[in-house]
Amino acid sequence: MKKLVNDPRAVVRQMLEGLVELNPALALLDREDVVVRLPIAPPAERPVAVISGGGSGHEPAHAGYVGDGMLAAAVAGDVFTSPSVDAVLAAIHATAGPRGAVLVVKNYTGDRLNFGLAAEMATAAGIPTRMVIVADDAALRDTVERGHRRGIAGTVLVHKVAGAAAAAGLPLDAVVDEATRVGAGLASMGVALGACTVPAAGRPGFSIGDDEMELGLGIHGEQGVRRLSLQPADAIVDSILATVLDDLSGAPGDRVALLVNGLGGTPPMELAIVSRRAMDVLREREIRIERAWCGNFMTALEMPGCSLTLLRVNDAMLARLDAPTGASAWPGRGQVGSRLPLPAPSEPATVRRGRGAGPLPAQLRGAAHLVADALDAAQDELTALDSRAGDGDLGISMARGAAAIRSLPDDAWDTPAIALAAMGHALRRAIAGSSGPFYATALIRAARHLDAEAPGAEDWARAFTDAVASIGALGGAKPGDRTMLDALAPAAQTLAEQVRQGVPLAEAWRGASLAAEQGCLATASMRPRLGRAAYLGDRALGAADAGASAVVVWMRALAGAG
Amino acid sequence: MKKLVNDPRAVVRQMLEGLVELNPALALLDREDVVVRLPIAPPAERPVAVISGGGSGHEPAHAGYVGDGMLAAAVAGDVFTSPSVDAVLAAIHATAGPRGAVLVVKNYTGDRLNFGLAAEMATAAGIPTRMVIVADDAALRDTVERGHRRGIAGTVLVHKVAGAAAAAGLPLDAVVDEATRVGAGLASMGVALGACTVPAAGRPGFSIGDDEMELGLGIHGEQGVRRLSLQPADAIVDSILATVLDDLSGAPGDRVALLVNGLGGTPPMELAIVSRRAMDVLREREIRIERAWCGNFMTALEMPGCSLTLLRVNDAMLARLDAPTGASAWPGRGQVGSRLPLPAPSEPATVRRGRGAGPLPAQLRGAAHLVADALDAAQDELTALDSRAGDGDLGISMARGAAAIRSLPDDAWDTPAIALAAMGHALRRAIAGSSGPFYATALIRAARHLDAEAPGAEDWARAFTDAVASIGALGGAKPGDRTMLDALAPAAQTLAEQVRQGVPLAEAWRGASLAAEQGCLATASMRPRLGRAAYLGDRALGAADAGASAVVVWMRALAGAG
Repeated sequence: MKKLVNDPRAVVRQMLEGLVELNPALALLDREDVVVRLPIAPPAERPVAVISGGGSGHEPAHAGYVGDGMLAAAVAGDVFTSPSVDAVLAAIHATAGPRGAVLVVKNYTGDRLNFGLAAEMATAAGIPTRMVIVADDAALRDTVERGHRRGIAGTVLVHKVAGAAAAAGLPLDAVVDEATRVGAGLASMGVALGACTVPAAGRPGFSIGDDEMELGLGIHGEQGVRRLSLQPADAIVDSILATVLDDLSGAPGDRVALLVNGLGGTPPMELAIVSRRAMDVLREREIRIERAWCGNFMTALEMPGCSLTLLRVNDAMLARLDAPTGASAWPGRGQVGSRLPLPAPSEPATVRRGRGAGPLPAQLRGAAHLVADALDAAQDELTALDSRAGDGDLGISMARGAAAIRSLPDDAWDTPAIALAAMGHALRRAIAGSSGPFYATALIRAARHLDAEAPGAEDWARAFTDAVASIGALGGAKPGDRTMLDALAPAAQTLAEQVRQGVPLAEAWRGASLAAEQGCLATASMRPRLGRAAYLGDRALGAADAGASAVVVWMRALAGAG
Repeated sequence: MKKLVNDPRAVVRQMLEGLVELNPALALLDREDVVVRLPIAPPAERPVAVISGGGSGHEPAHAGYVGDGMLAAAVAGDVFTSPSVDAVLAAIHATAGPRGAVLVVKNYTGDRLNFGLAAEMATAAGIPTRMVIVADDAALRDTVERGHRRGIAGTVLVHKVAGAAAAAGLPLDAVVDEATRVGAGLASMGVALGACTVPAAGRPGFSIGDDEMELGLGIHGEQGVRRLSLQPADAIVDSILATVLDDLSGAPGDRVALLVNGLGGTPPMELAIVSRRAMDVLREREIRIERAWCGNFMTALEMPGCSLTLLRVNDAMLARLDAPTGASAWPGRGQVGSRLPLPAPSEPATVRRGRGAGPLPAQLRGAAHLVADALDAAQDELTALDSRAGDGDLGISMARGAAAIRSLPDDAWDTPAIALAAMGHALRRAIAGSSGPFYATALIRAARHLDAEAPGAEDWARAFTDAVASIGALGGAKPGDRTMLDALAPAAQTLAEQVRQGVPLAEAWRGASLAAEQGCLATASMRPRLGRAAYLGDRALGAADAGASAVVVWMRALAGAG
């Protein structure tokens, strides 16, 4: 058994201890596994106490529904085992007074007997106590009469309505009436894709094939009514909802609340896909979805699967469902939204276009094309280097970048800022690998500093330095990590220094290019420290880093363009 | 692959469609898998937009954190795959304006590059956009420097603080500062008991033995840093918290928030047990738990396991964590309660004792002892009958009841009401099977009608009728279901009729007893319809129901006592 537990016999108490400590509005009784709502008022001042419970393993039921406006107490039995009469009695005496208590009980023999006897005893002791039995499982509708069905996830809606009615100050009979009315308009049905393991048993309750599912199971890890071959989510929802709607005699115009309940082991992704279809089906049948919730409300430990519950609602019931509650597991809200998508904003034209004058556009384009030619020429070398410890796509990536640069339109070359940004956007679209975002980010960042039509050497140096910084920030690498930064960082430093010393830009760039070459050579003895290459360790040693080598290729080309 | 899905390639879009329809405060963009918060304000009026996202499969992250006071948008990639730059850009343009955007990004290369480039492009387009990288995974602390670690569940706390800061109207840099400060005080570590299955892959990401666990895994269904043999929950928590506390240099007096995060496949029971231990450990180390949450916050599909996160907090940070939010997956609250149990109320003395006078006490006791003798004598017969379709314990149950009746104290026989209630309580304690609650409930119910010291025949008839009704209500059976009611119901009817006709009580009871005998005989041809016996069908046929036969035994004994 693989569970995060200690002693399997202590799971319930240890769980409850954790739960009450996580919620200052709850307390645990000492001699019984009963969670009560705080503060505890004197008996004479207590409103009708709505109490529920049953076997454990259905979390967040039942302790999660204890709170203002919902349950006054939850009684926890062992896993999938009814709590004792004494435990139920303790819950009643701890939270109810002369105004009485309502016990919301799922229809299982053990629960009926123990809660029922406790109700009788509490009544005899001066706390009028009534039981509301919930029997919402429609899976057995063909063979079992309504009152004999099992109680499953729909019970949570009874908790909510009864709790809200009690919080509104209603007398016992009125609370019972409202709870009973919910039960009468309720139908649920479940599907399981697998079993669950009761801690004390240590192994799954049943075995099931990889392509099978159990339709119509309950919430005690038991098998279902039918075993079928696994179907797509939509087909399963269609089948379950057909039964549930039949059971409620659902017809166009009917108003319902929908509860999509996970059995514990099914992730939110699947529950959302199930919910989507359920809402589709109801809409197709012209049934008004007044409220809808999706989540884990009444589980069977880690069982994979879900149940769908429909409740016929009216305005009064909706007001109870909407009433605020402090219960941690009640999801609130429930109002249904729309699936109609919003139009995604079009990307604004981030690249300004102008009409350049003079020789600059031709120079910019000429330099860029030299870079493109050099990258093309280096494709095989870059591929070989990148294959040593990377995925070998750098050569083709750079060649794609070169093609993208060559196909930029005429007005992309009007000013340095426009040209760099245009190249950045072109590269991001052309290159799928990580070099695309790196170069695109660097070029767009550099463009920030080159707003002038003919930027000076200091502008270029600042642009280059910031572009290199943006690459560091993007990838989280530092010099020495065996990346393109090992060429770029010394290059940026050299460029900035020489420009500061008054060296003309073209000459300073040649100096920077040499610095990049030296930095690149040094990578041959560096171990990769980032990304996938880090796991390949020594395989990379002895040759320069491919990314740094690509930097040398285009820097050299620009240096030659002088 | 056993999942409630349709086309594995459509899981993300179908999930998001379900999610936005379940929440009227959310909408989905049309061309990108981006969930945005409604309403959408004009750009100039938008506060700083806090945006997060990443691969899907981490639900409720990230769409569950979209809402007032938390995220403005969530960008969803394919399962465990970074979303595209275009998707991130669309999220920024849809929700941010001139005041800017903060992208909260978990430290994975793909996410860094795509969110980072989008930030650069948005900034260039006039929406100042900054990225906050979260790298809270302390599992790799021995080998990987802090900034290079993965981002895991602690990221949710960054969402919350940044979202609350943005909602408070803070400017971009201040929101970034607060988010960065959370990231700096954050450490997390996970454990997995099994793998998960990416829908498009169709099989688990790794295999693991029945007695093994993976310590220090991330949130992409990957293996952990170490594979160990499975340990009890407390030992696992101790080990994880030791690492996390070391990483934060935790010392007595420190103030922290605790986040216990389920990875998807672990039920609330186990997470509560883990939380309980985590709070114990922190208390033992004299660390102040300022807030604590437990649930599924950042999952890996249906992976079984959990992670523990600690965040160093101060008052300002707590105010951000406490600030209200409309995000559906934020648990709210977080204040820590107490595990100290409340004393369970003692059961009040429901059985009044008096000092009876006259011959009545002796008569009552005498009659009860006749019943006890008869039940003893019938033990073997009842055992045999009950073994046909029940669990065979009725004979011993009735014998235990007889012994309990005999050992009642002298003052239990003062009045009929006292005697019946005393017998009811004695039977409930003596009999473990379902006949205990049935008889106890009936006797306590009957006592309600016998308050007079010497009740009349009509009181007795009413008491008997109501007692029989209480048994029907308790078990949900009706005459014809092959239960004790098939003897009791005709007996109650006969008693009531004869008393109404003026027949003396003793004679009326003899009539009732005969009616019970006839009713009991009729059960021999009835199929059981309730409980376990219902599944055994025809095996029960041909002999009378054991429960009905027991009724005949004690009714006959009382008739003889007449």
